[in-house]
Amino acid sequence: MPDSLDAAMQRLNSSVEVDSELWREDIDGSMAHARGLARAGVLSEAEAERLVDGLSAVAREIEAGGFPWDPEKEDVHMNVEARLVELLGPLGGKLHTGRSRNDQVATDLRLWCRRRAAEVVDALDSLAGVLLDRSTRELDTLMPAYTHLQRGQPSRLSHHLMAWQEMLFRDRGRLVDAVARLNECPLGSGAVAGTGFALDRAGVASELGFERPMRNSIDATASRDFLMELASALGILAVHLSRIGEEIVLWSSQEFGFMTLDDKFSTSSSMMPQKKNPDVAELVRGKSARAVGALMSLLVLEKGLSFGYGRDLQEDKRPIFDAFDGASSSLRALTGALATATFHRDRLEAALYGGHLCATDLADFLVLRGVPFRDAHALVGSLVRKAEESGVEIGELPREAMTAAHPALGDEAVLQVLDPKSAVERRTLFGGPARKTVEAAIVEARTRWAKAPR
Amino acid sequence: MPDSLDAAMQRLNSSVEVDSELWREDIDGSMAHARGLARAGVLSEAEAERLVDGLSAVAREIEAGGFPWDPEKEDVHMNVEARLVELLGPLGGKLHTGRSRNDQVATDLRLWCRRRAAEVVDALDSLAGVLLDRSTRELDTLMPAYTHLQRGQPSRLSHHLMAWQEMLFRDRGRLVDAVARLNECPLGSGAVAGTGFALDRAGVASELGFERPMRNSIDATASRDFLMELASALGILAVHLSRIGEEIVLWSSQEFGFMTLDDKFSTSSSMMPQKKNPDVAELVRGKSARAVGALMSLLVLEKGLSFGYGRDLQEDKRPIFDAFDGASSSLRALTGALATATFHRDRLEAALYGGHLCATDLADFLVLRGVPFRDAHALVGSLVRKAEESGVEIGELPREAMTAAHPALGDEAVLQVLDPKSAVERRTLFGGPARKTVEAAIVEARTRWAKAPR
Amino acid sequence: MPDSLDAAMQRLNSSVEVDSELWREDIDGSMAHARGLARAGVLSEAEAERLVDGLSAVAREIEAGGFPWDPEKEDVHMNVEARLVELLGPLGGKLHTGRSRNDQVATDLRLWCRRRAAEVVDALDSLAGVLLDRSTRELDTLMPAYTHLQRGQPSRLSHHLMAWQEMLFRDRGRLVDAVARLNECPLGSGAVAGTGFALDRAGVASELGFERPMRNSIDATASRDFLMELASALGILAVHLSRIGEEIVLWSSQEFGFMTLDDKFSTSSSMMPQKKNPDVAELVRGKSARAVGALMSLLVLEKGLSFGYGRDLQEDKRPIFDAFDGASSSLRALTGALATATFHRDRLEAALYGGHLCATDLADFLVLRGVPFRDAHALVGSLVRKAEESGVEIGELPREAMTAAHPALGDEAVLQVLDPKSAVERRTLFGGPARKTVEAAIVEARTRWAKAPR
Amino acid sequence: MPDSLDAAMQRLNSSVEVDSELWREDIDGSMAHARGLARAGVLSEAEAERLVDGLSAVAREIEAGGFPWDPEKEDVHMNVEARLVELLGPLGGKLHTGRSRNDQVATDLRLWCRRRAAEVVDALDSLAGVLLDRSTRELDTLMPAYTHLQRGQPSRLSHHLMAWQEMLFRDRGRLVDAVARLNECPLGSGAVAGTGFALDRAGVASELGFERPMRNSIDATASRDFLMELASALGILAVHLSRIGEEIVLWSSQEFGFMTLDDKFSTSSSMMPQKKNPDVAELVRGKSARAVGALMSLLVLEKGLSFGYGRDLQEDKRPIFDAFDGASSSLRALTGALATATFHRDRLEAALYGGHLCATDLADFLVLRGVPFRDAHALVGSLVRKAEESGVEIGELPREAMTAAHPALGDEAVLQVLDPKSAVERRTLFGGPARKTVEAAIVEARTRWAKAPR
Repeated sequence: MPDSLDAAMQRLNSSVEVDSELWREDIDGSMAHARGLARAGVLSEAEAERLVDGLSAVAREIEAGGFPWDPEKEDVHMNVEARLVELLGPLGGKLHTGRSRNDQVATDLRLWCRRRAAEVVDALDSLAGVLLDRSTRELDTLMPAYTHLQRGQPSRLSHHLMAWQEMLFRDRGRLVDAVARLNECPLGSGAVAGTGFALDRAGVASELGFERPMRNSIDATASRDFLMELASALGILAVHLSRIGEEIVLWSSQEFGFMTLDDKFSTSSSMMPQKKNPDVAELVRGKSARAVGALMSLLVLEKGLSFGYGRDLQEDKRPIFDAFDGASSSLRALTGALATATFHRDRLEAALYGGHLCATDLADFLVLRGVPFRDAHALVGSLVRKAEESGVEIGELPREAMTAAHPALGDEAVLQVLDPKSAVERRTLFGGPARKTVEAAIVEARTRWAKAPR
Repeated sequence: MPDSLDAAMQRLNSSVEVDSELWREDIDGSMAHARGLARAGVLSEAEAERLVDGLSAVAREIEAGGFPWDPEKEDVHMNVEARLVELLGPLGGKLHTGRSRNDQVATDLRLWCRRRAAEVVDALDSLAGVLLDRSTRELDTLMPAYTHLQRGQPSRLSHHLMAWQEMLFRDRGRLVDAVARLNECPLGSGAVAGTGFALDRAGVASELGFERPMRNSIDATASRDFLMELASALGILAVHLSRIGEEIVLWSSQEFGFMTLDDKFSTSSSMMPQKKNPDVAELVRGKSARAVGALMSLLVLEKGLSFGYGRDLQEDKRPIFDAFDGASSSLRALTGALATATFHRDRLEAALYGGHLCATDLADFLVLRGVPFRDAHALVGSLVRKAEESGVEIGELPREAMTAAHPALGDEAVLQVLDPKSAVERRTLFGGPARKTVEAAIVEARTRWAKAPR
Repeated sequence: MPDSLDAAMQRLNSSVEVDSELWREDIDGSMAHARGLARAGVLSEAEAERLVDGLSAVAREIEAGGFPWDPEKEDVHMNVEARLVELLGPLGGKLHTGRSRNDQVATDLRLWCRRRAAEVVDALDSLAGVLLDRSTRELDTLMPAYTHLQRGQPSRLSHHLMAWQEMLFRDRGRLVDAVARLNECPLGSGAVAGTGFALDRAGVASELGFERPMRNSIDATASRDFLMELASALGILAVHLSRIGEEIVLWSSQEFGFMTLDDKFSTSSSMMPQKKNPDVAELVRGKSARAVGALMSLLVLEKGLSFGYGRDLQEDKRPIFDAFDGASSSLRALTGALATATFHRDRLEAALYGGHLCATDLADFLVLRGVPFRDAHALVGSLVRKAEESGVEIGELPREAMTAAHPALGDEAVLQVLDPKSAVERRTLFGGPARKTVEAAIVEARTRWAKAPR
Repeated sequence: MPDSLDAAMQRLNSSVEVDSELWREDIDGSMAHARGLARAGVLSEAEAERLVDGLSAVAREIEAGGFPWDPEKEDVHMNVEARLVELLGPLGGKLHTGRSRNDQVATDLRLWCRRRAAEVVDALDSLAGVLLDRSTRELDTLMPAYTHLQRGQPSRLSHHLMAWQEMLFRDRGRLVDAVARLNECPLGSGAVAGTGFALDRAGVASELGFERPMRNSIDATASRDFLMELASALGILAVHLSRIGEEIVLWSSQEFGFMTLDDKFSTSSSMMPQKKNPDVAELVRGKSARAVGALMSLLVLEKGLSFGYGRDLQEDKRPIFDAFDGASSSLRALTGALATATFHRDRLEAALYGGHLCATDLADFLVLRGVPFRDAHALVGSLVRKAEESGVEIGELPREAMTAAHPALGDEAVLQVLDPKSAVERRTLFGGPARKTVEAAIVEARTRWAKAPR
């Protein structure tokens, strides 16, 4: 009797504005439940068929738009059922036999999450595809590898893009694991303690694509760890995308000048006519904040809740909807942006010369001549300071200075050691930036993504 | 040129679905800006007047409903301006002189927050009013004070309700402080480095009810600590309301049986015909999760952002809107629920008898007879264990047992000491639960709330 | 040269107070690296052996206590290496060849997390063992199943405890999945772009029990999603434990009176001599706050970080250490508390009588006589209101009132329907609370836990 | 009787490792309480004096180091009291009369927070001092103002540093407001419902520097919003520092080259001999993650807690300690780093030439010649695109191109308009970057900080 509620309570109580998002899953679940009631002998075959037809009619009405969602009917479940009763008369009132909104909404949410997670996995696959393609195309583009945003060692752009790809592969794994864990059917759990009707739980679960019915009716209706787990996976993904976004923003600055986004992914300023801003990257970075907030909401929501279902759980929907929406839109936009961006090879390679990128190589060279690494590190460090004082790169120090530091540094081979382009190709170790190593990594990754479970 | 954006980017980029919420403040700010441009000599008086009239017309259109918000025009600012240009022709294009969306949106948000914070302060005042009224009405209702959800000492319901009131008073203070701090006007800061036009910043600020113009154009456009601070104040408030909600849920249980919510604030079950659930309290508790998530979003959003404005900040709106909506609806519903709830005096007072609530009083009695408190505490503790073993309350122990423990406990006065109703009235110390003390506290609080700054 | 650092910088910079916790893993990793350097021909076999012996000596010193951890040597890595150089002379300086602290600390952390996660999995297994044992022992203890903390339907204690067990089983799965995903070896990734030395990455990985070397050196040194994922798993676990804690607190209250904790898990009050507080449950509930905070720290930490390693990552340690410590200590204490607690069967069963727990059963009874569920629900609802008005349970209504509502309710069978003890045994559906159903669930769960992957 | 606790419970239960941090405040509070007991007639003057002397002795022992903190005595309160009893005999057992650990720890925490907040305010004042000094010294250093990390408009370094200063001033205000709100004394509230002893609450409060006694004993012992509020203020501050840290990291990169940190605030790499990393800035940025985590812990901790004191609150200490420690160490190190950093004027000013920084000025120029701003913006936008295609700055376009776009652009004055150095000095509007405007802003800020309340 929500129509007798206080107006302020009514506003707090009604959730249909948010949870109507679940209509498709709500109807799918109800169809399976109706058929299950028939198999249990609670309904006749004909009754079940008429209920399924009625539910199809409601689905068509919603799909067509203009369905009269009514906040006074509280939620998606009551709106759909009320319309069903309008269409079918008293028979509509038989649908909810052996069922509660508690097991119903848990089922809807699991179905919805499974569908949306599959979409995000698809979007991840697309982004990975673009990264692998760009890695292939940019195999010959060298650049520094940074630590602390300081130039560190010579590397190549593909190696950097492949690092992004590695992160995303684990993100994909987390989503797939979460879906595997949630793919159990709450229906048949009733409000909290099951039902006396001999429902065909296994059959209903199977019809809805679930692995099995949930094993405990209290847990089935009161637990939302599947939402916390998905929100964690999406939150970590969003943090990863924020890191990619940060780098796109950096690389698009005039100071770095490493890349230019296509106009289709940039926007201008309302005041400054010259601006072309890397908005896509900033928005993706910003979306990570919303994803983390969503996760936080879900954790706080369940903290300290006694069992079984409590009405607090109404508030689980907006956060998980937000988290999925943000992930999908971020991934899709980023995929397009990276597919169409231009990388400026000249600027990337120019950055190899400045910052003594081969200092580690020089130390390693001394190690091969028997100097303990710590001593070699110190010795090269002092050469770097000398070079800095003279405003030159280490390789531009006079030969005498080099020999004075260590006789082996008078060797011709040192020039080669200090050439960034040679240096990167020396790093052929598995996981390193040498051309052939990265090429093999791309091949391996293509296979891995293609074979990854869904 | 958003119409040339990639479709996925378009979805990520458009914010009008969310930020149209700011339309009123956007138009107020534009009117003040137009008048300021006239005072600065950039526009003629007549031009400014026509702009203001045009903006009024747009406001009326939006208020009437059916304004054609267009996602391709990105945001509330561009939608309003585009309509203004339709109405006024090229003159409309003069409005944005010396202004950027960066200072414009910062102004809109500050105005919006100021208005919504005032609403929340009003709602707090109403809730406090109800608490003070109920405290007065329930002055004679005794109950235990709990710690660790164990019965601790005798107290009264009014004293408990007044504890809630104290928390809420500090919540009010935080909101008022936050508004005082944010009440500065960004307009005139332009995109980031001000403008060459000699705008009348002080006049514009004053017209919009701001204390002063902001002092630094970079800070004015890039800082959102006013949102973080408000979200903190609202988050703490929400946590406080969750504690009240928790107690209403507990007290409404059959086990406590301390109160019954009015039917206008309870709902039933779709499966269990007998259910009357304390949904209002659970929803309020649940909303706290959303408020904490909103705060988290805002903190994460700004973490590590370089200055000035970055597009990440688009994502600041939904969280702050959510936080205010949750606070308002929670407060309004809780106010009604507490105004109409029934407290069950018999159940509350019955809880005084069980749990040896006067054990502390007995120890204090011994202290007054010279026993150091620690020893008195230990002695009474052993009497409690003895009583527990016999399944009686401490006051029901045989007199010999008492005297054996300490001669003073044979005293007649001990009966009085162990009477919970006397015990509560002994606690006349400032801040305690004695009737007259609480009565004075109610009087003081009424004055304090009435005089509190807005 | 940290000794030349500013004092304030020194305080910010030194991490040894926290990261010395990693000493064992640091030394294990160094031993494997030393042997790998020998296989790569960078060190002689004899040198590697002496390094390993030296590292063993350092390990023994640390284990014995009193190792002179020195904040000026910054971190655990430099402290250990400095001591090694003291012991071995220049040879000690060869250990760091082809390695950076960036791949070193990533390796240490992965090893440490793997070890601690195994401990938490053990602790989960123990807690599940206790829950399964108590479920078996309490098979005959009936109690209401609650929703909204209102009595809902008849159930049994074992069914409730088994709900807890289900949640924990998924927690276990998340930890195991996380460990499987992190079990890759960063060593050989150097500072960011690998190394020119032909290290035996696969051999080192295998010696340390890793599945494989990490595939990309930038990712290996800059990514911490394994920490975010573990903190998520631990955060969700902690939220689950907070729910169990909440119920123990409720059930230990005088009002519920469902259970009593053993004295070994309760504490008293410094002021109130009679108090016996369910501290273990409150502390476990409180620890969830720390776990959620730890997760948030890790998410915020990496938000917006560019690649590769940044010094921000120093701050990843305390949160993950806290999260693991909290999980271990909570699980261990809760396991003991539940193993030794007393459940009060009389109080639990008494709660079945009060709250019309069989109202759903009565509606179902009418459904079996052809009344659509919605109508049956409404009809029983009005009977409940009638009973409430008369202050009786629904089964105590006069027969005429029942028959007036629906002829079938005059049936003798209705008495059986309204008996909570019969009602619970009717719920034999998979996942429900009937005795034989729960018994089978316990058997299944025992097998499942025993076979679960480590 | 903690010595009879289960070992696992003991570990969970003992807090002395953390809360011994409160020893000084614990002893101060006890001294005031002892004197108050004397004024209430509960102790003799002589007894109170001996207790105060005994407490002084304990304080000296702790200060000297080596105080035998004993985890079996649970917490700081019991450790101090136990030692007092050792020193004074039974008299020590009188100290806790009319007091509970619940009001005691609330008092300790408020005192501790007040002290630490004053330290952070001091540290903020120092950092502001450095910023104001550097702003004065760098008044003639021009640089671009950025939005979206793209060069936007000409500005000056001092204007940027003053933006940081503005943020920090509001951070200071939040801390001062929080301290004003928390400065009330819980003592006299007992465990939850006060005490029957006629304690001199006002006198004790005043002796401890509190504004007044707290008004409600339940609120006084169960509320921790002062911690949430402080953690919010510190969290926002930390986010602000993370933004400053981000900019230092950017500006220290080879690509920006805007600044160099002094060696006392940089560190090197264990592998790469040439590295000089901006660790101070990264650590400050990283600390923000911990601060946000601490805030979240405190919010989650209190979510859904019933009144009064619950043991969950033991977990409030580590987060608030962490938050204060992080703020202090970050501020101190950043102050030193900014005082000693070198700004590279040549690099900063060179960045003015590139990015068409005066495009807005050109549009404004057209506005002054009657072109509506939107049209002027579009016209200049197309000139920028033309310049970009030719690879020149807008000012380098041939005069014909300019005149063709708009006749007024043939004007000589345009050259002046397009000169960044002139452009910045045109922005004399309050809050803008012109030299004299910034100079006045520095003067105003110096006064404001000096006069700000403590």
